[in-house]
Amino acid sequence: MEAPRTRTGRLHQAPNCHLTKMNKDVLYHLALDTESHNFRKMFSDIKFVCFGGSCTRMEKFAHYIAKELKVPIPAGLSIENIAKDTDRYVMYKAGPVLSVSHGIGIPSLSIIFHEIVKLLHYAECFDVVFIRIGTSGGLGLAPGSVVISDCTVDGRLNPYMELVSLGNVQRLPSTPDANLAQQLLSLSHPIQDGFDTLVGKTMCTLDFYEGQARLDGAFCDYTEEDKMTFLHRIHKEGVRNIEMESLCFAAYCNRANIKGAVVCVTLVDRLKGDQIDTPHDVMEEWQTRPQKLMAKLMKSELGIE
Amino acid sequence: MEAPRTRTGRLHQAPNCHLTKMNKDVLYHLALDTESHNFRKMFSDIKFVCFGGSCTRMEKFAHYIAKELKVPIPAGLSIENIAKDTDRYVMYKAGPVLSVSHGIGIPSLSIIFHEIVKLLHYAECFDVVFIRIGTSGGLGLAPGSVVISDCTVDGRLNPYMELVSLGNVQRLPSTPDANLAQQLLSLSHPIQDGFDTLVGKTMCTLDFYEGQARLDGAFCDYTEEDKMTFLHRIHKEGVRNIEMESLCFAAYCNRANIKGAVVCVTLVDRLKGDQIDTPHDVMEEWQTRPQKLMAKLMKSELGIE
Repeated sequence: MEAPRTRTGRLHQAPNCHLTKMNKDVLYHLALDTESHNFRKMFSDIKFVCFGGSCTRMEKFAHYIAKELKVPIPAGLSIENIAKDTDRYVMYKAGPVLSVSHGIGIPSLSIIFHEIVKLLHYAECFDVVFIRIGTSGGLGLAPGSVVISDCTVDGRLNPYMELVSLGNVQRLPSTPDANLAQQLLSLSHPIQDGFDTLVGKTMCTLDFYEGQARLDGAFCDYTEEDKMTFLHRIHKEGVRNIEMESLCFAAYCNRANIKGAVVCVTLVDRLKGDQIDTPHDVMEEWQTRPQKLMAKLMKSELGIE
Repeated sequence: MEAPRTRTGRLHQAPNCHLTKMNKDVLYHLALDTESHNFRKMFSDIKFVCFGGSCTRMEKFAHYIAKELKVPIPAGLSIENIAKDTDRYVMYKAGPVLSVSHGIGIPSLSIIFHEIVKLLHYAECFDVVFIRIGTSGGLGLAPGSVVISDCTVDGRLNPYMELVSLGNVQRLPSTPDANLAQQLLSLSHPIQDGFDTLVGKTMCTLDFYEGQARLDGAFCDYTEEDKMTFLHRIHKEGVRNIEMESLCFAAYCNRANIKGAVVCVTLVDRLKGDQIDTPHDVMEEWQTRPQKLMAKLMKSELGIE
């Protein structure tokens, strides 16, 4: 479905014709509804939605990006969790940026993605860009490196998400926007940044332990040799990091006709080990790295010095 | 793998032989590790682990069950979140009961299940029972009814979970413990309780909207007639409720040789609608219903009046 173009860009519309028949829509997992809240007034200026797994990380990101984008916040006010009447997800607004948590895994991401797309639809937003800023396990990379996904694949290296609906399976292509990935790469600068940023293939799994060939879960019926053979095979196929949401994120961006990118920092080199045991403060700094790239992108797009 | 039996019951062991080779194990998503924490001292008395999606619900459950089981709490102390150094999950201990959040969906549940099984393994617990107390959509039931699962199926009615590991797919049988389901049913009493409790088949999906045949997501390419045909078909096949974790929960209990049950309250009758729009206080009361059944089970098992 091609949305109408206007002088301000492409109107953001949810591709579900049933929505027009509803008098009221309850976005249950955000604890917001179209009757009690004026979405147009609250959200029509949104240009970027950033998603991440952790609630506190997304709260910190909202404060960080507000400062970077010089979002004016009147004295005596502060950024608050707009979804505070639920504990399922958090959502913060910093000027034209929404910062949203998605929990862990595709099903958890799927719910909030549906509800954010509807929110932007009711708010009549234009030209919104979605970015997942997350954490991942790396393959053959120094921990702390940042991977921008040019392709997302499932645990069997398929470049699509299988969606089961009404007992049938649909395959949804999961390749992120190539131009946005290249734009993000062009904004990185290893020497100034102090860390490597690269474009690569991302594997998205349904499980953290066996799904990612770890030996340290409660269950494991393969050997260390099996594990290493698998990890070297996927590394050879171009996989540079492994996480748990990118497949759905990229597939749903494609379906919603939204420009999207997946930018994840790596917390461990899986060719060297399974456990994540880096000191807390180091890990905290690593997790700000995708955020710094976001600040560069948004300043460039919004014309902020 | 059959665990050794002793006079106090069956020792709880994680079926992964690689664990014995590790000097230290970091349970990353609980922010606990075997070096900094004495798991045996902290957790060896655990007899029940209750899992639920929401952090605040599982906090409230810990306080409720502590009161019901008359767990002595010294003056000046209170129950606290043991996993407070992470925001991914919460975990509370009320005497012999752990109350743990699992987030939304199979991948999120899978991680915490792995880490709780390892925790009990290191703590050398005996005869632990796992129960998911959750929320769900009902089929042909008055909202507020409680369903104890005697069978869990995926979105295509298959009674197994497909686990992708090292690029291969394993099928894990997902039928919960029949005796425990019947024991729980026998503890319910519709007239005294003020709500219906029944045993039935539970469908577990990877998505809340299209996966559960809703018309009110951001995406929907089927008609209301397609939806109703599907829901009536699965109802005829014995499905009484739909949620997003039971398949993995039951499958992993089977693998770990742990007695497990899935007990969910229904928040909406999906044969009548999609949206969850019941007043907050009514929904709060409904969500305590599986908890009340837990109190009865635990009192009965622990010999508490």
